[in-house]
Amino acid sequence: MNWKTEIENLKAYQPGKTIDDVKKMYGLDSIVKLSSNENPYGFSVRVKEYLSKADFTFSIYPDGYAKTLRNSLSEHLGIEEKQIILGNGSDEIIQIISRGLLQKGTNTIMPAPTFPQYKHNAVIEGATVKEVELDDRGKHDLGKMIAEIDDDTSVVWLCSPNNPSGEYIREDELISFLDRVPSHVLTVLDEAYFEYATAEDYYDSVELVEKYPRLLVMRTFSKAYGLAGLRVGYGIANEGIISKLEPLREPFNNNIVAQGAAAAALTDQDFIDRCRTDNRKGMEMFYELCKETGLKYFPSQGNFIVIDFGIDGDEVFQYLLSKGYIVRSGKALGYPSAVRITIGTPEQNRGLIETIRGFLDRT
Amino acid sequence: MNWKTEIENLKAYQPGKTIDDVKKMYGLDSIVKLSSNENPYGFSVRVKEYLSKADFTFSIYPDGYAKTLRNSLSEHLGIEEKQIILGNGSDEIIQIISRGLLQKGTNTIMPAPTFPQYKHNAVIEGATVKEVELDDRGKHDLGKMIAEIDDDTSVVWLCSPNNPSGEYIREDELISFLDRVPSHVLTVLDEAYFEYATAEDYYDSVELVEKYPRLLVMRTFSKAYGLAGLRVGYGIANEGIISKLEPLREPFNNNIVAQGAAAAALTDQDFIDRCRTDNRKGMEMFYELCKETGLKYFPSQGNFIVIDFGIDGDEVFQYLLSKGYIVRSGKALGYPSAVRITIGTPEQNRGLIETIRGFLDRT
Repeated sequence: MNWKTEIENLKAYQPGKTIDDVKKMYGLDSIVKLSSNENPYGFSVRVKEYLSKADFTFSIYPDGYAKTLRNSLSEHLGIEEKQIILGNGSDEIIQIISRGLLQKGTNTIMPAPTFPQYKHNAVIEGATVKEVELDDRGKHDLGKMIAEIDDDTSVVWLCSPNNPSGEYIREDELISFLDRVPSHVLTVLDEAYFEYATAEDYYDSVELVEKYPRLLVMRTFSKAYGLAGLRVGYGIANEGIISKLEPLREPFNNNIVAQGAAAAALTDQDFIDRCRTDNRKGMEMFYELCKETGLKYFPSQGNFIVIDFGIDGDEVFQYLLSKGYIVRSGKALGYPSAVRITIGTPEQNRGLIETIRGFLDRT
Repeated sequence: MNWKTEIENLKAYQPGKTIDDVKKMYGLDSIVKLSSNENPYGFSVRVKEYLSKADFTFSIYPDGYAKTLRNSLSEHLGIEEKQIILGNGSDEIIQIISRGLLQKGTNTIMPAPTFPQYKHNAVIEGATVKEVELDDRGKHDLGKMIAEIDDDTSVVWLCSPNNPSGEYIREDELISFLDRVPSHVLTVLDEAYFEYATAEDYYDSVELVEKYPRLLVMRTFSKAYGLAGLRVGYGIANEGIISKLEPLREPFNNNIVAQGAAAAALTDQDFIDRCRTDNRKGMEMFYELCKETGLKYFPSQGNFIVIDFGIDGDEVFQYLLSKGYIVRSGKALGYPSAVRITIGTPEQNRGLIETIRGFLDRT
């Protein structure tokens, strides 16, 4: 069969062990999963209220324009409805962008390590992938990224706060970058963790969309909004960009429950504020641990932290797993001697920190 | 910017008028929408029961492997779990297949008129589209389709019952076609309306997947199962094909509600049987109308019927709209002097038939 050669070595997503699997394997009663940067506080009660009252006509196709959600987002962000593209998770926005702009003969630039879907989609489209290593503080090397741009570059991916390092791009750096990007290149700024940022100099990149017509900002309901299970991500750019991308979107990509729940979630900014504050407190607990024990870490503006143990990350992962804590080994994330930990509830954080201390004391 | 030239003239999905729009426009109290081949009987009570008891943790990513739903489908269909690929609607399955097999220099063959997403996706991928007209009874011309296959053909799309004509491919025709398709070609058989078929010689194409390793059957929960709003479609093929397609699927494409609801819907085959029977009764009402009035129509195995009025289909559409019935003008569907009507409830059918009689008598 005529399979595209590009996809020959692609691997399918491998589902991780379920919580039940881990319970059985280690004879544990409870498992704490801090591996997928999900919101440990769940989601807003407004979503529950909305769903308890909703009487969905599932037999009818969802609104393909997602008018209600689009409206809410446009008000919330202070932009036009037509500046928004909605995806079945940000994953789909990445796919749409890749399908519209990447192909054989083009190239695309991204930091490394970062969220793997940029590369995955570029490979499918047959584009050349140019990865520019983060600096040793976990920050984008924007100078090098600019230098990599040539006539065949279609898309530059930025991720801020970056997954997995947690570091963010400062506003002056971003502006200086955008000022220098040539006009044939789309810059995608993935801000999946935007709502968690607390740095005093954190800025609202959506405001930059006005001035930079080839900037697309991606955000999501999967992280702070706590709706990962419902799959809603979105992109914001000028109308010209969005109108080119819209035909690549499946007509009914966001399901009827997802659209309603996301709009309901948006009305509860107090929930987001509380999650941001509590996440920051949790983050400080891990900073503290690192400072006390001398473990290296990246300061993070997300809801996760990469901690370097100086030994094989899988070993740390396995130990924590055996004690009922699922984290991510840094091995698959580009930091082989580290693990990435999602910030949990205070109780979860305390338990995990205790367990890490146990690990450090074990020899 | 480096937009792919293929997408330059693509149009985005244009949302139709909402029921509220139509109400206002014509000062009507109630509107009957029979334009999108949705199930007028809604969906199984089992789905409602399931949802009323479900306590979803939306903050957690859905099971990317959709184990429960996959399991149910595999039991229901008598196939292996790994022979299934799940999509956010069949739309996504079409996209995944196109992304894996179509590119510049390849071609793809499909009937015309048919479901537009095959062509839409082929255009995006830069493949050459070869459309083979249905015969004048609305049937696939499989002989001509075979004759169109060359070394560069990657995918042949079949749609049975075909949308919009409603006609189906007979088993012997399909087998003879599959026996002749060369081994570099994937045949996709889209059976979105399979559950509605009542023809005595209708067959279960899933059984053919064993014998024909390059046949992929597509089905959906959007039609008879009444879950269009939740977006669940699936493909069935041998494991080798599925394993090539899986890396192209977004890891979390089916949301948590959709997975659970679809599995619940599958347990209620009585609902499907009732819908099939009632749909056939409704279909007979329209056959009757056509026979009495001399209107031409295609016999249909789906839940819709194309009726030819011998005048501009838009005119019929507009008249019916003004009376509160939304149907599809055949103009955009390849039958410019016809409309496509979704079979409704007995009451909806009676009302619409009455209105059509009024239209025919108006001059």
